[in-house]
Amino acid sequence: MTFKERLVDVREAKWFSNLTTGVIIFYASVLGFKTIGEVESHYAMMLTALDYMVTVYFLVEIMIKLYAQEKTMDFFKSGWNVFDFVIVVITIIPLDNTAIAPIARIFRIFRVLRLLTSRPELKKIIDMLIGAIPSIVDIVILMFIVFYMYAIVGNFLFEDAASGLWKDFLISMLTLFRILTFEDWTDVMYEGMEIHPWSWIYFVSFVVIAAFVFFNLFVAVIIGEMEKINNKDMVDEMHEEHDKIDLILEEMRAMRAEIKELKKTTT
Amino acid sequence: MTFKERLVDVREAKWFSNLTTGVIIFYASVLGFKTIGEVESHYAMMLTALDYMVTVYFLVEIMIKLYAQEKTMDFFKSGWNVFDFVIVVITIIPLDNTAIAPIARIFRIFRVLRLLTSRPELKKIIDMLIGAIPSIVDIVILMFIVFYMYAIVGNFLFEDAASGLWKDFLISMLTLFRILTFEDWTDVMYEGMEIHPWSWIYFVSFVVIAAFVFFNLFVAVIIGEMEKINNKDMVDEMHEEHDKIDLILEEMRAMRAEIKELKKTTT
Amino acid sequence: MTFKERLVDVREAKWFSNLTTGVIIFYASVLGFKTIGEVESHYAMMLTALDYMVTVYFLVEIMIKLYAQEKTMDFFKSGWNVFDFVIVVITIIPLDNTAIAPIARIFRIFRVLRLLTSRPELKKIIDMLIGAIPSIVDIVILMFIVFYMYAIVGNFLFEDAASGLWKDFLISMLTLFRILTFEDWTDVMYEGMEIHPWSWIYFVSFVVIAAFVFFNLFVAVIIGEMEKINNKDMVDEMHEEHDKIDLILEEMRAMRAEIKELKKTTT
Amino acid sequence: MTFKERLVDVREAKWFSNLTTGVIIFYASVLGFKTIGEVESHYAMMLTALDYMVTVYFLVEIMIKLYAQEKTMDFFKSGWNVFDFVIVVITIIPLDNTAIAPIARIFRIFRVLRLLTSRPELKKIIDMLIGAIPSIVDIVILMFIVFYMYAIVGNFLFEDAASGLWKDFLISMLTLFRILTFEDWTDVMYEGMEIHPWSWIYFVSFVVIAAFVFFNLFVAVIIGEMEKINNKDMVDEMHEEHDKIDLILEEMRAMRAEIKELKKTTT
Repeated sequence: MTFKERLVDVREAKWFSNLTTGVIIFYASVLGFKTIGEVESHYAMMLTALDYMVTVYFLVEIMIKLYAQEKTMDFFKSGWNVFDFVIVVITIIPLDNTAIAPIARIFRIFRVLRLLTSRPELKKIIDMLIGAIPSIVDIVILMFIVFYMYAIVGNFLFEDAASGLWKDFLISMLTLFRILTFEDWTDVMYEGMEIHPWSWIYFVSFVVIAAFVFFNLFVAVIIGEMEKINNKDMVDEMHEEHDKIDLILEEMRAMRAEIKELKKTTT
Repeated sequence: MTFKERLVDVREAKWFSNLTTGVIIFYASVLGFKTIGEVESHYAMMLTALDYMVTVYFLVEIMIKLYAQEKTMDFFKSGWNVFDFVIVVITIIPLDNTAIAPIARIFRIFRVLRLLTSRPELKKIIDMLIGAIPSIVDIVILMFIVFYMYAIVGNFLFEDAASGLWKDFLISMLTLFRILTFEDWTDVMYEGMEIHPWSWIYFVSFVVIAAFVFFNLFVAVIIGEMEKINNKDMVDEMHEEHDKIDLILEEMRAMRAEIKELKKTTT
Repeated sequence: MTFKERLVDVREAKWFSNLTTGVIIFYASVLGFKTIGEVESHYAMMLTALDYMVTVYFLVEIMIKLYAQEKTMDFFKSGWNVFDFVIVVITIIPLDNTAIAPIARIFRIFRVLRLLTSRPELKKIIDMLIGAIPSIVDIVILMFIVFYMYAIVGNFLFEDAASGLWKDFLISMLTLFRILTFEDWTDVMYEGMEIHPWSWIYFVSFVVIAAFVFFNLFVAVIIGEMEKINNKDMVDEMHEEHDKIDLILEEMRAMRAEIKELKKTTT
Repeated sequence: MTFKERLVDVREAKWFSNLTTGVIIFYASVLGFKTIGEVESHYAMMLTALDYMVTVYFLVEIMIKLYAQEKTMDFFKSGWNVFDFVIVVITIIPLDNTAIAPIARIFRIFRVLRLLTSRPELKKIIDMLIGAIPSIVDIVILMFIVFYMYAIVGNFLFEDAASGLWKDFLISMLTLFRILTFEDWTDVMYEGMEIHPWSWIYFVSFVVIAAFVFFNLFVAVIIGEMEKINNKDMVDEMHEEHDKIDLILEEMRAMRAEIKELKKTTT
């Protein structure tokens, strides 16, 4: 057994992926505690040490995976591997004493995302979510049109509202998103009705159109996806049945022909 | 190739619909920026120029489509074409210096709606949404009855409430719509309970009846529509199968008759 | 044509049910206006007159329906007829000058409910809603148990809260219902956390259990109902197919028996 | 009939389970009233007496069930029996005069949970809910990752917010849960935007990702479960059909072989 074969064994081993999962969870919980002020000041050095250790572990892990590959470059053919690689590389750059140190510290949290790649079930769910995007894309465009129209009209009508919720186009979009979630939308409406008493039509129509119709459509699309998967098995089975029925018909016709022949010989 | 044939080519060309989409999106984003005060004052003239250009583009586009038609009047047989035509005509009327200039400016935004007609997928979704209306209409009537009854009772019970949320029939309807969206409905209830301590029955029953039952029914109808589409393929396949099974039965009976005949001849 | 036959004709006539619908809608919109103060004072007498007219119309209508019946008592066999009758009778009692006049006036609004019986589609929807109750009843009991447990615990923990939201068992139930609708539930939680810092467990667990799980179950049940209806057609068709396949099998066995017989005679 | 056989009869009797249900409901309603202050002070002794009576009833009931079992230990093989047993034992411990008396009183409420075991329909629903957990577990993990990431980032960005909603990791998680329920999430956002004007991206992305996508996925999973149950009957029927079609094919081939033989003999 060569060294490479041993690395492949390690890479495929259950204990290796479990160890990675364990390291990430341990690291995640420590990071969680880190945010509680007092803990941070006492154990600051220990945390820094842990940080280095996790960095080293991730480096070793990715190197194993890289060398275990027959051709090193094949490693990057899987999107999930690229994802792992990018996270490891980004969090390795020493930025602690530079100007962007706080941002670098946030980047470190993305390591927790590696939990996704250590559980195959999660990979499936995410693949499914990504697969559902095309069927949502047109609804998003439709929603954008509705938002756009209402944002322009809302900004035109309520630009001078004291709350400043309609002061420019982007803020109006944000306000409409808030209305979509039903979050204190009547406060926005009552303010609008003081400027234009009939503007409840604007808000009620937006709530009905955007929230009810679109939200339901959204749900419908996802359920539709779900059903497609469920029905697929049944349709497959049906096709099988069809083929068999066709076979019966053929067999039957052949038989009839033979009987006809038989009739000729007997008479 | 005549001039008319060339126009048909242009109308059907992918680049033509893409150009239209591009023009609309460009126009839409400029309109969006227009609402941000400072931009407007600096580039006012440039925006007006753009406005004219888009108007001209739309006119040219619709003229191409009109002339490309074999019989000009056929153009208006498609609802989507009429929709395009109305938008172009309405936004062409020079109202900038008249009394209704602000309203005219709002109308201009409806041009963004032309995005709908430039993407066939969106046409389908909207056709689907319109097709779902008949199955919703009775639920809307039922909802109206519930709203009507509760509005009259609510207006009767809480007419003198300080908040003025029940001061007349229309306002009561609006308040009930607000309760339907769960938006601060307890504030309305607690105010009502100060007038009539037992009035929580009124609010809780409305929330349960209107929000829970109706909302779910609404969802159910839309999902029902969705399923009909999904199941259709399967039912079609089943019908095909049925026809084949009938064929087998017929064939079989014919065969049996022949065997009987055969039996007669041999004995 | 006897008088009775004529009444039956009237009862079944489209114009008669349309007239009833029209009268109810007209009456409903007048009742709606009645609540707008100024209108009421000006047209008070006219409204009273209308009230009498509608009362008379309803009486005549129900008498036609009663006499048109072969046996008068059969009229009451339909739940919808009983519903109509009760509404007409209740709103006929002269209570305007008695102590319970305000309540009597509210009862009059129930006349609008007769819209339900004048549209057969609405009758169907309501029958469907009532038919769905048995499959919900156990979930309601389960929900009640959860509410009950949390109400007792909540009342025990937060009885002295300044807001008085937990001051007795019934009020606690109402507060929990409010939390179920997500209505300002964090305000209730933050108040609770001041009394018992760890009580966020109480609120978060209630939200997760009651709102998420139960609400979804609720949706699931209704969708289940919907599907049953959709699948029914398909299952029916399948049963038909099964019967035919059984027929083919029988036919086939009979045929085989005949061939066997044939074989005997020839050898 | 031995004494044991009589106990089995009692255990299986409808009246026995109905009596238990009745006792629990009676006890539950008394416990409910107990929380209304005045009632408690007047009937304190009566309530204590009832408490003892219910305790005795529960003891007798569980003893009957224990002795009615052929082997006493088999009783504990059913999870529901263990559940009953634990509740009875816990509420029997005399803690009224100890330091943890208030907690003991709360435990007593868990007796109401025995309603679940006295209605078989509820047992089914709960078994279904528990059965649905495995298909939710990965979504919960995915949700946790999203919560975790956003909590760390949120705590990092808004740690010094006056509201204290982001002051440590756990509180940040709670705040995010609140945003997931759309509960006054804009208040949190507007506060965040005062610290970092561009932080609306943080909140809107969280709402879109966590609330929309995940909530829908959640619904989809449950509906998927529902459908599996509904479709199962149909798939079963289909399998039956398949078997019959296979039978027809076999029968047919046998027949054809016989006809061939027949042909040989006649020629």
